[in-house]
Amino acid sequence: MRIHVINPNSTAAMTRTIADAARAAASPGTDIDAETGMGTPPSIEGYRDEAMAVPALLAAILRAEARGADAHVIACFDDPGLAAAREVATGPVIGICQAALQVAMTISTRFSVITTLPRSVPVIEDLVAAYGAAHRCRRVRAVDMPVLALEADPASARARLFDETRLAMDEDRAEAIVLGCAGMTDLCDWLSQTAGIPVIDGVTAATRLAEALAGAGYRTSKAGAYAYPRDKSADMIAGAA
Amino acid sequence: MRIHVINPNSTAAMTRTIADAARAAASPGTDIDAETGMGTPPSIEGYRDEAMAVPALLAAILRAEARGADAHVIACFDDPGLAAAREVATGPVIGICQAALQVAMTISTRFSVITTLPRSVPVIEDLVAAYGAAHRCRRVRAVDMPVLALEADPASARARLFDETRLAMDEDRAEAIVLGCAGMTDLCDWLSQTAGIPVIDGVTAATRLAEALAGAGYRTSKAGAYAYPRDKSADMIAGAA
Amino acid sequence: MRIHVINPNSTAAMTRTIADAARAAASPGTDIDAETGMGTPPSIEGYRDEAMAVPALLAAILRAEARGADAHVIACFDDPGLAAAREVATGPVIGICQAALQVAMTISTRFSVITTLPRSVPVIEDLVAAYGAAHRCRRVRAVDMPVLALEADPASARARLFDETRLAMDEDRAEAIVLGCAGMTDLCDWLSQTAGIPVIDGVTAATRLAEALAGAGYRTSKAGAYAYPRDKSADMIAGAA
Amino acid sequence: MRIHVINPNSTAAMTRTIADAARAAASPGTDIDAETGMGTPPSIEGYRDEAMAVPALLAAILRAEARGADAHVIACFDDPGLAAAREVATGPVIGICQAALQVAMTISTRFSVITTLPRSVPVIEDLVAAYGAAHRCRRVRAVDMPVLALEADPASARARLFDETRLAMDEDRAEAIVLGCAGMTDLCDWLSQTAGIPVIDGVTAATRLAEALAGAGYRTSKAGAYAYPRDKSADMIAGAA
Amino acid sequence: MRIHVINPNSTAAMTRTIADAARAAASPGTDIDAETGMGTPPSIEGYRDEAMAVPALLAAILRAEARGADAHVIACFDDPGLAAAREVATGPVIGICQAALQVAMTISTRFSVITTLPRSVPVIEDLVAAYGAAHRCRRVRAVDMPVLALEADPASARARLFDETRLAMDEDRAEAIVLGCAGMTDLCDWLSQTAGIPVIDGVTAATRLAEALAGAGYRTSKAGAYAYPRDKSADMIAGAA
Amino acid sequence: MRIHVINPNSTAAMTRTIADAARAAASPGTDIDAETGMGTPPSIEGYRDEAMAVPALLAAILRAEARGADAHVIACFDDPGLAAAREVATGPVIGICQAALQVAMTISTRFSVITTLPRSVPVIEDLVAAYGAAHRCRRVRAVDMPVLALEADPASARARLFDETRLAMDEDRAEAIVLGCAGMTDLCDWLSQTAGIPVIDGVTAATRLAEALAGAGYRTSKAGAYAYPRDKSADMIAGAA
Repeated sequence: MRIHVINPNSTAAMTRTIADAARAAASPGTDIDAETGMGTPPSIEGYRDEAMAVPALLAAILRAEARGADAHVIACFDDPGLAAAREVATGPVIGICQAALQVAMTISTRFSVITTLPRSVPVIEDLVAAYGAAHRCRRVRAVDMPVLALEADPASARARLFDETRLAMDEDRAEAIVLGCAGMTDLCDWLSQTAGIPVIDGVTAATRLAEALAGAGYRTSKAGAYAYPRDKSADMIAGAA
Repeated sequence: MRIHVINPNSTAAMTRTIADAARAAASPGTDIDAETGMGTPPSIEGYRDEAMAVPALLAAILRAEARGADAHVIACFDDPGLAAAREVATGPVIGICQAALQVAMTISTRFSVITTLPRSVPVIEDLVAAYGAAHRCRRVRAVDMPVLALEADPASARARLFDETRLAMDEDRAEAIVLGCAGMTDLCDWLSQTAGIPVIDGVTAATRLAEALAGAGYRTSKAGAYAYPRDKSADMIAGAA
Repeated sequence: MRIHVINPNSTAAMTRTIADAARAAASPGTDIDAETGMGTPPSIEGYRDEAMAVPALLAAILRAEARGADAHVIACFDDPGLAAAREVATGPVIGICQAALQVAMTISTRFSVITTLPRSVPVIEDLVAAYGAAHRCRRVRAVDMPVLALEADPASARARLFDETRLAMDEDRAEAIVLGCAGMTDLCDWLSQTAGIPVIDGVTAATRLAEALAGAGYRTSKAGAYAYPRDKSADMIAGAA
Repeated sequence: MRIHVINPNSTAAMTRTIADAARAAASPGTDIDAETGMGTPPSIEGYRDEAMAVPALLAAILRAEARGADAHVIACFDDPGLAAAREVATGPVIGICQAALQVAMTISTRFSVITTLPRSVPVIEDLVAAYGAAHRCRRVRAVDMPVLALEADPASARARLFDETRLAMDEDRAEAIVLGCAGMTDLCDWLSQTAGIPVIDGVTAATRLAEALAGAGYRTSKAGAYAYPRDKSADMIAGAA
Repeated sequence: MRIHVINPNSTAAMTRTIADAARAAASPGTDIDAETGMGTPPSIEGYRDEAMAVPALLAAILRAEARGADAHVIACFDDPGLAAAREVATGPVIGICQAALQVAMTISTRFSVITTLPRSVPVIEDLVAAYGAAHRCRRVRAVDMPVLALEADPASARARLFDETRLAMDEDRAEAIVLGCAGMTDLCDWLSQTAGIPVIDGVTAATRLAEALAGAGYRTSKAGAYAYPRDKSADMIAGAA
Repeated sequence: MRIHVINPNSTAAMTRTIADAARAAASPGTDIDAETGMGTPPSIEGYRDEAMAVPALLAAILRAEARGADAHVIACFDDPGLAAAREVATGPVIGICQAALQVAMTISTRFSVITTLPRSVPVIEDLVAAYGAAHRCRRVRAVDMPVLALEADPASARARLFDETRLAMDEDRAEAIVLGCAGMTDLCDWLSQTAGIPVIDGVTAATRLAEALAGAGYRTSKAGAYAYPRDKSADMIAGAA
């Protein structure tokens, strides 16, 4: 099986971290086809960054399907372009936010999300609501570090992540933690062991769900909102006929 | 006052229809600065089209502010790029879907939306929910005609629009109709007079609300999720310091 | 254009503050027809006060339409009698709570409301939910001062309002503040400049929206729940026939 | 025990029907103190009628408490003035809509409501949502007869009520019916026997719940939104001090 | 009238406390038929305990109906087996959680629940949501004492309950308190008098509501989800025929 | 990997169908440990059946973990005992309803569920809401055949299932179908090919998700509501100390 993992931003170091996590999560025999955004922002920290990353992402989806991808993982916690990707793809497309929430709703009754910047909190809250997880999510928290600083200053990243995890356990009574940024992937095992509760990294969750769905033969429905884009060349002529 | 009205798709004829409606709606002394999407899809009919239209739209927002725009109207009923546009803009940004729903919730207790293609129905339903209007919206209906065919075959457009309006009044007990496509703008007055209930065209609604907000001095909040995009050039260095 | 602004309570000094704000907000050429409640409570601080203010308010709506009013603003943040006013009116009727929330949902992703007395908090929370803004409203806060004390003790009013605004920014991460009382109208500009985020006063917002809707020709739908009250004189006879 | 039952409208014949139902529902030893609205509309069919009935209703609540009433029933399905009545009352105040919905949620998983006029449908839908019963209510239906015609033309009332009940059972799969008008009280037993499913009349339900709550010693909370109205005579002086 | 009160757990001392409360709440002439779970867990503190208590509870419902019970009260705040009990019963079945919430929604606008163990908080939150009370419930709190310790260490129980009540009043601005465990029944009057706001004990509330519903002749609907279990003996034969 | 699949009812033929589907869905090397309910109802058609099946199911979970099960699938669409099973289990526990809905929310924007008996419709609707999928689920439909008749009369089962699928596509505009009964498992491929849209069988979905979660090392959180049941033997003594 071939899973296409796209990091929508243009930072190759982050793609490597993501690819490592995806490969560690994948079953034997699964090929991880990891890709970096081309000409996209170096990190996705807000609606503009999301918007600027999506056209390249859609092109990458199409190229990956031509290469034989069975499923796709969008490896950014804002799930940028998820609906559009499903529209152009034939195989299932998994967003790491939706995947992580589905796992969190399966292994806990209440969880909190910890992301990078405070400005992303409402973005993620709205995603949580759109995915039907609002009643299970205690709170979306932020460590107040930019995405790229996570890798540049790992000691601060760990310290702040641990602090927010403690608050999530004590104040929110969170039973599990969802990591709200693909760049936190490599801190997942450490944090889970240190905190003593499940910590869910979206890259891992999404890679496994992508395998699960593709392996079962599920494909994106082409009836309705995810149907392939229409060819519009005849619209005005047909209308005028 | 100067209102920037952007038609996100690349069909100039549709921009003219939209600009006419915006000018008809505007107060004396308001300048309508209408623009067509550059290099974007000829119509917006799904998530992919939306995604492909947004980068050009954001650039247009910035150029318009440099020209002195006081507010912006995104003239496509899917409100593509609305959050991203608010992030890059200083003035208020009005989506025609959100504006039309706000008017509908002010002058009726229950309304229905009529759009073009069935595939857009879930897209609009999700917008209605995100804007907090789900409990007021009876149903999102579709005339089953592509956007560009509305103009190419106006007789069919009127007939199908009237049929759905009758169904909305009889089956949904809709007290008002929201036109779910910017390309229906020029049918609004006719339909309202024929049906005998208020019909709300988003271009008209959004132009008036843009004037209202800009005139009162409201600007998009720059604290939080709509803050200007961060300059990320120092992220890794700062982190490494 | 003629906008009828009704202060439902019987305190004329408060009507003057409201009328000043409405006139400051209105476009050139708009006539503000401001009115004080007749025989109503001196302030609206709870359900009983609301109920006692509505019959006079409905009579005022009818008189104002006879005088040529194009739209109406109910200048009390509880939006007392809003649905009933829409039923008797022909033009649009704007409640300052609903108007302020519509503006807040357009220029921010998360906001908090600050009102006068703690007892009003659940009242406003229920309005926020009914208007579809609950997912955008972080919290409804109270300065714990009666409505009329705002004007009698402006120094305390400013101090307490500023304190709650700071809490809203720090604890709620509010991106905008909605003033939850018509009597706070004259503190809006000061607070916005001091706090550095948008502050939305319902009188300003509603006056502008009233102009916007009336100017576009929108009228309250008379099909359904806002239809004019029925003449019931023939009910029993017709039934018995 | 003394239960005060107020018919908010001014039609004494309807009060007699309501009083009969309340007495039939009451336990031995319970005194039903039934009252007709003074100077209120002859029927409550919309927001204006509600608003015009509430001031007299609040006065009646106070007089009844002075006479020794232990609890109050507002016998109109729109529950007009319910919150205001709770604010002025010491004993519990039961609305027949809320009471009927509480019973319906206890003895069925899905129910439909049948009211008089189509214009009341959104009014009742909003009440159902506010009382937390929206997920249990399949549909609010209307027989399309004015309130007073129910009594004037009982044969039509029965026929139309039965027709809508059949539709509720077949189309909605309603497991119980809630009668959405106090004027349908006397048709409850007949309809339940004819249809073969539980039919819930709000007057009966509310009378029983009023007894239940008053008998257990429950009183309306006076902390918060239902606290007695404040004495405002000192507001401006205290503020100025 | 005969009300069957079943304590689903197997601790007879707790049944006595519950029976005392039910008898104190009941009207003269009502017979309380109290029963202890047979072979069930000593206390219900989680989903497993609930599950293990239900089969015996259903058998008890059937036996009680054979003895002439008019209605049933399930005296555990998790409302274990409530839907299943309604399916097998003819009379109404009242859960003490649902009953307490219905009372709380009638006499206050906002309330908090105080239960025993933190692990029960999500369980009760989900019940509150399922009963349509989430918008009225400020918070579910826990005293962090096991059910059986309430009776074993009453001094600590009182102290912790009072502490949480103060927090509910100060932080949540709760207007009423709902006791979230049947074992707290005997602390209700003391707490209400000490705190000065209504405190609602589910056993009292449910006993009164059971009387109210049974006395009005309401029975569980047998159309739909609460219909008696089907006799399945002929399924495969009929299918094969 | 070892996946424990429990059919909560006592019909061994149905377990065989379920086990075949699970084995067909499983990856090479995964061992399916399928089990039939012991002493439970022959089919699960309502709340009583669910309740009677859970104690045996919990015992089976514990035995399976002792045998080395890595994850569990509860193969009944009502997800009976799901929360209780998670409380006693160490590995993840997947309900076929929740799993199917998660897949449906990933590959479509709107879907409908088709179950067996009309009485199960509200049961499943409530599950859909509890899992956060209500806004994506168009409708829960029923073929009106008992569970066991599906196997006894396969021709009718196919015909009725196809009819409801057509209605779901035409009336609901469902983009995918969720099979609402474990006994429909073997009709999944046929129906998907015939209807031309994705059809999701919960056994397949849950087996794949169980593999995905167990393979990633996820275990049920033991902090909070899914913590192992407490040992209560010391409660009263400790309290009395």
